[in-house]
Amino acid sequence: MTPEEFRNNGYALIDWITDYIEGVEQFPVSNSALQPGAIRAALPARPPTTIESFDTVLRDLDTVIMPGLTHWQHPSFFAYFPSNSSYSSILAELATAGLGVQGMSWITSPACTEVETLMLDWMQELLGLPERFRSDSPTGGGVIHGSASEATLAAILAARWRATGGAVNSTGDTSKLVAYTTTQAHSSIEKGLRIAGIGVDRMRMVPIDATFAMRPDELQRMVEADLAAGLSPFFVCSSRGTTSSTAFDPTPAIAEICQTHGLWLHVDAAMSGIAALVPEFRWVNDGLEFADSYCTNPHKWMGINFDCDLFWTADRAALLGALSILPEYLRSQAAESGAALDYRDWQIPLGRRFRSLKLWFTLRCDGIEPVREMIREHVRLTQLLADWVQADSRFEIIAPHPLNLLCIRLRAGNEATDSLIDRANATGSALFTRTVLDGKSCLRFSIGARLTEQRHVAAGWALLQSLE
Amino acid sequence: MTPEEFRNNGYALIDWITDYIEGVEQFPVSNSALQPGAIRAALPARPPTTIESFDTVLRDLDTVIMPGLTHWQHPSFFAYFPSNSSYSSILAELATAGLGVQGMSWITSPACTEVETLMLDWMQELLGLPERFRSDSPTGGGVIHGSASEATLAAILAARWRATGGAVNSTGDTSKLVAYTTTQAHSSIEKGLRIAGIGVDRMRMVPIDATFAMRPDELQRMVEADLAAGLSPFFVCSSRGTTSSTAFDPTPAIAEICQTHGLWLHVDAAMSGIAALVPEFRWVNDGLEFADSYCTNPHKWMGINFDCDLFWTADRAALLGALSILPEYLRSQAAESGAALDYRDWQIPLGRRFRSLKLWFTLRCDGIEPVREMIREHVRLTQLLADWVQADSRFEIIAPHPLNLLCIRLRAGNEATDSLIDRANATGSALFTRTVLDGKSCLRFSIGARLTEQRHVAAGWALLQSLE
Repeated sequence: MTPEEFRNNGYALIDWITDYIEGVEQFPVSNSALQPGAIRAALPARPPTTIESFDTVLRDLDTVIMPGLTHWQHPSFFAYFPSNSSYSSILAELATAGLGVQGMSWITSPACTEVETLMLDWMQELLGLPERFRSDSPTGGGVIHGSASEATLAAILAARWRATGGAVNSTGDTSKLVAYTTTQAHSSIEKGLRIAGIGVDRMRMVPIDATFAMRPDELQRMVEADLAAGLSPFFVCSSRGTTSSTAFDPTPAIAEICQTHGLWLHVDAAMSGIAALVPEFRWVNDGLEFADSYCTNPHKWMGINFDCDLFWTADRAALLGALSILPEYLRSQAAESGAALDYRDWQIPLGRRFRSLKLWFTLRCDGIEPVREMIREHVRLTQLLADWVQADSRFEIIAPHPLNLLCIRLRAGNEATDSLIDRANATGSALFTRTVLDGKSCLRFSIGARLTEQRHVAAGWALLQSLE
Repeated sequence: MTPEEFRNNGYALIDWITDYIEGVEQFPVSNSALQPGAIRAALPARPPTTIESFDTVLRDLDTVIMPGLTHWQHPSFFAYFPSNSSYSSILAELATAGLGVQGMSWITSPACTEVETLMLDWMQELLGLPERFRSDSPTGGGVIHGSASEATLAAILAARWRATGGAVNSTGDTSKLVAYTTTQAHSSIEKGLRIAGIGVDRMRMVPIDATFAMRPDELQRMVEADLAAGLSPFFVCSSRGTTSSTAFDPTPAIAEICQTHGLWLHVDAAMSGIAALVPEFRWVNDGLEFADSYCTNPHKWMGINFDCDLFWTADRAALLGALSILPEYLRSQAAESGAALDYRDWQIPLGRRFRSLKLWFTLRCDGIEPVREMIREHVRLTQLLADWVQADSRFEIIAPHPLNLLCIRLRAGNEATDSLIDRANATGSALFTRTVLDGKSCLRFSIGARLTEQRHVAAGWALLQSLE
């Protein structure tokens, strides 16, 4: 593609994206009739031997790809979690690709590191996070990860390093280490622990209360039992907003236990932490002042396109101890003097692109007010929906719903609820996902798309009522 | 940002990127005078309270960010490794951001998974990789990872799972497992092993020969010694093109030892494997037919913008055994029937974007011929450079240079070589990195940028001659 072709194709693609987003509502949210393999079968089995025009590719996006997409930006997308994408962040992603620089070390493109550090400090301030997470604090700092899964793994590795006094790097011995979370924690906690050599035999699922939140008394009992058995409790993951139901663990009480026993406290607020941008929801941060690490995802509820997980730690020495390795071909004077941050030592991968532009563009061009308004509106709609559900005796609400997720079910039981979800999704006019809470199948009604208005929530609810 | 503003800002950004890439040669390759903290200091310490125009942000990219970039697309960028970015792949990244879909499971956007699977099969064919890596083979398959570091970690985890018959997921017991590679392997091998609970005490650095390649006789000796000591050898990483010097381990001989002892063979060809697109360089694949897993990076030498690492395994059951976890909120009928691939179980993170568009756009709009021509030309220039260096008695070549990297040094010694690198980089007219081979400091002259022509290589060499 020549530079002039790039210009023209680029304009065309910008138009195509604008039309897609502004017209996304016309698509079915998902294509539930699609059979596995159908999209692949519509494409050539073997690589092309002649080149094609960009117009042809754009046309295939419309005709072949579109019928195979689940539209996460659709206003009636009530499934999984919010994953909205602002126009500013889409442009930033384009700029990132166009610059094509690597930010693995400060020296490999200093601005890539420095803008990122500044964005993490800006976000610390906007979210009202503890000062000890700031990069200009004595022991803390933040970084952008690709996903909360990677952030969680980094937290586990830092905790593992600290608990073993660094010996794990040499011995690989994790045989005494015990970790604690709940059945409601995100699957990435189990995955991260498993990767780090903490098998399920040494993962404790702390019992939960009626709100699906961790019981600190049970945590304390389990930690003491493990200590008495000669094991080494080392890590607790406290969820601030679980994926299943937005349950909030009592993090302050958990933090006390962690402090008493020297456990690493990681707080996972991947889905809900961004709510702290809104002053009246800042309670989502409760207990964070005692956390060793924390993550939340602007690529969920802040309109920053995937991938953008913010990870902070109050103990960067442990993180660097766990993850830094310095071969000759990556040495630099700036890093060795301590003056510069090398973010490769803060993450699993080595390479990294200039992702902080997404925050920089969005905070400057849009500011934070549109996100605050959006979050407030999503929460208002969720509470309104709860009122509607409560007025229909066929349905019940299964869990607290302090923010933008409502877990509802049919009193008729699991089978009826599962069937309702399937039939609703088959219409293509809305999309819901399912979870199980306390043995009960539930429909998760997650309200988080940028384009969602009251009429979409009302239509989604009317659909459920009409199908039952 | 309104849709109309997005259109206009998007056109402006497309123009800005075209001008940047076409004019990148006018910039110093890097700004070696830049002090850590200078870029941050030029930006507001606190988040903005008013919104700004996109033009202002673009202007800041020019005035504040540009002086802080190391320009990886510059034709005189001879540092690290190639990281070139085609116009087609930049547009694909824009499309990915604009669609904003998640591909963690087949059901979360089927086309995202199916195009990716097809692209891996296309690339298997174009690279001439073993059939058993194909997704339509009985036990294999491929996936896009963000980086070779993640691919390596996935390989280690699959190997760990297979070696322990899956028990590691429960017990976390890695205490007997031993891994083998060389001092020349990429730092991500040590990092991945460390993460997986294989401390350096159980990482064997197999001695290397005069070409910096692994010695199979030494590997065999070490494996037998570990077996005799009651340990469990489980994993070998063989490099096809090391980062320091493009050394090629004798993978076929290594594979034999792996087969005899049931070790997982991972082949890391992150930097050089893409050379197999060119028929006369297909020898880079030697030994791959016995590998359990393999990775190479289109985001290095194929012009696909970061991030795009291709990872294949011949044993997907082990990979899934290591990495799959299925919470209720991610269940789907398509996945449970086995008809659909859920790529979340092939990688460390859960979330994933529609990265295969980068391959799809580029292979269709540009085809493979421009990449083949580019690779051939880079290799030709490297061999030409080698002739020039050999004709200057002040310099010597330290390692074989079968592809696009030449490691050279001053006969005057390490200090003189290090000083030459620093002084050359300080000019801003080219950028080199340093490595150490057999105790000797070397300048790595890596020829891999899309825009690099003979005149740039000649100028880089003239610079080195003039400074000495």
